[in-house]
Amino acid sequence: MSVYTPVSETQLSDWLQDYSVGRLAALEPIKSGIENTNYFVTTSQGRYVLTLFERLPAHELPFYLELMAHLARHGIPCPAPIANLADRYLGELNGKPAALVTRLGGKSVEHPGAAECGELGMLLARMHLAGRSYGGYLENPRGPRWWRFAAREVDRFLPPERRKLLESELQFQSDQRFPDLPRGPVHADLFRDNALLERGRISGVIDFYFAGVDCFLYDVAVCVNDWCLTDPAADLRLDAARTRALLEGYASVREFDAAERRAWPAMLRAAALRFWLSRLHDFHLPRPGMLVHAHDPEHFRRVLELRAGGDAPWL
Amino acid sequence: MSVYTPVSETQLSDWLQDYSVGRLAALEPIKSGIENTNYFVTTSQGRYVLTLFERLPAHELPFYLELMAHLARHGIPCPAPIANLADRYLGELNGKPAALVTRLGGKSVEHPGAAECGELGMLLARMHLAGRSYGGYLENPRGPRWWRFAAREVDRFLPPERRKLLESELQFQSDQRFPDLPRGPVHADLFRDNALLERGRISGVIDFYFAGVDCFLYDVAVCVNDWCLTDPAADLRLDAARTRALLEGYASVREFDAAERRAWPAMLRAAALRFWLSRLHDFHLPRPGMLVHAHDPEHFRRVLELRAGGDAPWL
Repeated sequence: MSVYTPVSETQLSDWLQDYSVGRLAALEPIKSGIENTNYFVTTSQGRYVLTLFERLPAHELPFYLELMAHLARHGIPCPAPIANLADRYLGELNGKPAALVTRLGGKSVEHPGAAECGELGMLLARMHLAGRSYGGYLENPRGPRWWRFAAREVDRFLPPERRKLLESELQFQSDQRFPDLPRGPVHADLFRDNALLERGRISGVIDFYFAGVDCFLYDVAVCVNDWCLTDPAADLRLDAARTRALLEGYASVREFDAAERRAWPAMLRAAALRFWLSRLHDFHLPRPGMLVHAHDPEHFRRVLELRAGGDAPWL
Repeated sequence: MSVYTPVSETQLSDWLQDYSVGRLAALEPIKSGIENTNYFVTTSQGRYVLTLFERLPAHELPFYLELMAHLARHGIPCPAPIANLADRYLGELNGKPAALVTRLGGKSVEHPGAAECGELGMLLARMHLAGRSYGGYLENPRGPRWWRFAAREVDRFLPPERRKLLESELQFQSDQRFPDLPRGPVHADLFRDNALLERGRISGVIDFYFAGVDCFLYDVAVCVNDWCLTDPAADLRLDAARTRALLEGYASVREFDAAERRAWPAMLRAAALRFWLSRLHDFHLPRPGMLVHAHDPEHFRRVLELRAGGDAPWL
């Protein structure tokens, strides 16, 4: 579904002449994902993922690729970009910017338990600490500035009570000021399907193409809003045990400070608002050629209302 | 045998606070190797090798570590150094320069067949191509300059006919001039025990601490002189099938040019001379604290005489 730009074995074999990864053995399109064209690539050397960037601005790509390279060389299990013979991570294939990254083992878990949430918390904190020495800068592309843009775009599609909720939440968030929260590169989209697990450990964090620089706590809130739901299909309140496990795991590597503690309830709402807005946008204003059915925006509207209603357990 | 500087679990746990590799799970000294102190390190994240550098000049260490990092990010299966929170590969532990690198799977093969020699040839060529964009420079520390130094040191221990062989070979080599051979970073010590194999493929090339910039063909000759012996314990002539497989594997990735073809017989002798000299040096002038029994220098004296006698098969 997500193959916008087909790549043949012959085209890829030629392209791989410019890399040191050996001979092409297999090429398989990846059907999930909506932003880019992705293939699994197997060579005589190893297993990789090939990405052709369909939509991301070319000038932002080095931020993502260098961030992955930075985290990988710090021991974070994330895709490591492979440099070509010209020593560049970014190449071009069939007219699109393209990159080859290592393929990680493991599988995502649909119903994580407290142990997995604890593992995620620890890994997230390690990723944040490792990211602090990263030199690249890109403002979170789905931050407050984008919220206001997206809200203006979707406003006209909303019934009055939804519009009112959106306006009041934007007002609430713009009244919040957390200038002192610890910041750095954050993944910003670490949902269950972007983490791979193997024998109870996180073996991979994938899809960094929404990453940017923001508060670390925002990244934690994005995770909690997805990993710690009581029942993602029915009960979107936070499960206390899993929420605690994720936060405790995180704090065992990087302690939260007092400002983060205070900001937590608002941050959970900010993380819900961001995905409510993007799902509204994808639903009402689908991009031409967008082949995947949009997620239901109502899910994150309900998450937002629950968090705004005080569902924000802390350690 | 090679643990010159002991490291306790407590010391390592403290040290790892400065890394993003999770919690220490196990620490095990590595008994082989004579240059450095090495430990296998297992953490909640993965498997690593810890090296404390005992003897290499501190200013040379970045060349080796950055070279491994460069090759690893090009997809070459070599140990990838792990950066610490200060974004450095080189730290200090118990008073020694120290580095953590990834631990690769696989096992070295004592009796490689033609297929394994072919794999090695291909990998070596890929490594050479990937290395061309490496910016670091260190002259091969065991090159011609060092030969003359080592020869002066060991000369007095040699019986007349050995001394004569050494002198005439040094003279022969200094008469050779190959200014145009393709050059770049070479491993320069890729003996069978420095390659790990898994399911017939090279899964790891290890121990880059004799690497330097030299002719690529020299690296090939070092490999052939070890991997392609008819019987390492008895018959040091080159096995034609395995030699051909290694050279063909290499040439399938990077073609040899005419100058390399001409230089081959002399290069095999140079690669034998280098190890004859270092083994003579280790045998007659062991370093204080050198705990490993020195290799028999006669092995490479015989290899040198055979190659000088015309045992130099080519494609």
